[in-house]
Amino acid sequence: MTKLNHHFQKLRDGYLFSEIEKRVSAHQKKYPQACLLNLGIGDVTHPLFPNVVEALVKASYEMGDIQTFRGYGPSDGYDFLKQAIAQNDYSGIALDEIFISDGINTDISNIQEIFSIENRVGIMDPAYPVYVDVTVMAGRTKPLLKTGGYGGITYFPCSEGNGFQPEVPNAHVDLIFLCSPNNPTGVTMGRENLTKWVRYAREHQAIILFDAAYEAFITSDAPRSIYEIDGAKEVAVEFRSFSKSAGFTGLRCSYTVIPHALKVRDAGKIQSLNQLWKRRLDTKSNGVSYPIQKAAEALYTQTGKRALQETIESYSQRAKILLEGLRKIGYSVYGGLDSPYLWCKTPPKIRSWEFFDFVLENAHVVTVPGFGFGCSGDSFIRFSAFAERDAIEQTLSRFKALA
Amino acid sequence: MTKLNHHFQKLRDGYLFSEIEKRVSAHQKKYPQACLLNLGIGDVTHPLFPNVVEALVKASYEMGDIQTFRGYGPSDGYDFLKQAIAQNDYSGIALDEIFISDGINTDISNIQEIFSIENRVGIMDPAYPVYVDVTVMAGRTKPLLKTGGYGGITYFPCSEGNGFQPEVPNAHVDLIFLCSPNNPTGVTMGRENLTKWVRYAREHQAIILFDAAYEAFITSDAPRSIYEIDGAKEVAVEFRSFSKSAGFTGLRCSYTVIPHALKVRDAGKIQSLNQLWKRRLDTKSNGVSYPIQKAAEALYTQTGKRALQETIESYSQRAKILLEGLRKIGYSVYGGLDSPYLWCKTPPKIRSWEFFDFVLENAHVVTVPGFGFGCSGDSFIRFSAFAERDAIEQTLSRFKALA
Repeated sequence: MTKLNHHFQKLRDGYLFSEIEKRVSAHQKKYPQACLLNLGIGDVTHPLFPNVVEALVKASYEMGDIQTFRGYGPSDGYDFLKQAIAQNDYSGIALDEIFISDGINTDISNIQEIFSIENRVGIMDPAYPVYVDVTVMAGRTKPLLKTGGYGGITYFPCSEGNGFQPEVPNAHVDLIFLCSPNNPTGVTMGRENLTKWVRYAREHQAIILFDAAYEAFITSDAPRSIYEIDGAKEVAVEFRSFSKSAGFTGLRCSYTVIPHALKVRDAGKIQSLNQLWKRRLDTKSNGVSYPIQKAAEALYTQTGKRALQETIESYSQRAKILLEGLRKIGYSVYGGLDSPYLWCKTPPKIRSWEFFDFVLENAHVVTVPGFGFGCSGDSFIRFSAFAERDAIEQTLSRFKALA
Repeated sequence: MTKLNHHFQKLRDGYLFSEIEKRVSAHQKKYPQACLLNLGIGDVTHPLFPNVVEALVKASYEMGDIQTFRGYGPSDGYDFLKQAIAQNDYSGIALDEIFISDGINTDISNIQEIFSIENRVGIMDPAYPVYVDVTVMAGRTKPLLKTGGYGGITYFPCSEGNGFQPEVPNAHVDLIFLCSPNNPTGVTMGRENLTKWVRYAREHQAIILFDAAYEAFITSDAPRSIYEIDGAKEVAVEFRSFSKSAGFTGLRCSYTVIPHALKVRDAGKIQSLNQLWKRRLDTKSNGVSYPIQKAAEALYTQTGKRALQETIESYSQRAKILLEGLRKIGYSVYGGLDSPYLWCKTPPKIRSWEFFDFVLENAHVVTVPGFGFGCSGDSFIRFSAFAERDAIEQTLSRFKALA
């Protein structure tokens, strides 16, 4: 008789965003006339840049011509895109240290496969829910704790008390998920703190899985890459994406950096994580669509860079308007400066799903309840500035009316 | 200290096609003047159909216009594509039984995640190497057997003796990989044989993972879908692809069917495999690129269907020429009728890598050594008819000269 992966049963019911969708759709049935404002799911609103569309179209025509048609590409991506990334986003990263992928979700979910089940996992709290869910699915967790978290995971609380900066633990952890600027808090890890984490990982022979999905939004002098920290290449994998900065959420392209310097001594042998990941990709993937990789390459032209800069500035401006507006009404709000996300405290004694429902019911505004990102998030809701400017201004007037 | 997934160490060195690439590139250095003919890796040679390019271009422009831009799509694909699939490729398959993916490799590699490690896996021998490799990576195998196979896997030999038809085993197996038309033998499973397998799976409460990547090439009356067999919906998952038939190897689009009727009784609960897979996708994937799904949809228009038919016929004709030519020279050759692949017996006492090397050295023709597909393949090489007609004719004259 076929047996299932029992660990799936340990997952909380439904995926956060599916639950939100369900409540929103019930709300829409109840109020068919209401003008719903969605500041929930972090999907972009700006279309693709004209030069990106041009590159997509050109590559599409190439694929229709026998002279220029391309079949299977490299499982880890074309060199033309890797070259653009290596030249523009890093210094001292080799092409074969870069792996092109169809999304950070894919890579950050799958990279755990190359590690043993026995590793102890550490995750920021609150955090993007995928880190916890893939840890559960793989069977690295133990029964639920009284706090509501999973046994077997070491949580790094990020709260008002520590300025939302995760602190290195006293205990030992093997695999560390860090996200900066963090989703959902919108707060970036400072250079000093990140240095502490790199030192911790070196001392503990741990590995940092660094999710830099929102690095393009950093305006402060906080590190945009973990490799800005000395010694990080020996202990950290970095994940980056074109989704939010360049509006690629519907196109699907991202990349992962695994430096050759990242070696793991295991079972008496020194092994290269880069090689292990390559072996997995060669077996399980046929790489990313050629036209999509050409589209991503176009982001690195002068025209592409300018458009990217303008888009980021436009989103950042909206985040700033929302941040200042909510604070003016009297809310305690964090993030929104280096990030499109704002982390807004709920009124005293009101928990996050309750406040989510209240806001949806009374202001017709969709947010994300902080509890969906972990126990530490239960007195917050997340706003996303990926919305039309008008929607942000309307949200502010409706919140003013609520107060 | 971070520990690695030790199962990766059990994989044979390098991926089959990487090893071939290495030898070919050494050969090219040795004979820079030689005209190399590649009948090895199964990559297509026809470019995308004009109406597919048109759909790609149109969708690219949509993505550049704020009125028609699309961000995140459903993790399991857009309904417009599912609708086309349900209407054209099946009868009685619902939209939410179809999962759009970026390639069969991805899905067939990842579906094992939703099953327990304890399941006994059965695989055709010879077979596409990914089935074995993902079983090894997941830790479902035991030490190597004397035959060269992996302990813990039940092999279903496909040989001249049984007409390359895998036979249902006497012992119990939980997860069964079947591929028809099989890669590499090019032989299709007959209706009677497939019926035996469905009956076996029902009796053993086993699940069949049915790889139908090459179904479009079937010209005989063999089943193109496992769901043509009564009772298959309760025991089988089917994987299909646009790669080979429509030249999507560089675009990346495929789909997987998991009927609602496929339930697994495990740990005292009846669970839906469809729901389990959906949960995995919701967490680990953001779906397939919108323009690529629009391109796939275009295959189901009248124009698309006609182009597909013509392409298949052209590849089939080449396979036939190669089959007849090789037989005329005196080789024992199988497949090539329902499939773009031909399975050619090596001369007596010559093993497959040896014959691969001989053919490369003396005829400058790239093939694939049968051993790469399993122990039963060691007295065969695989030819692919995904090549220019001229290359096929030249291959035949060079082989004639060798004989």
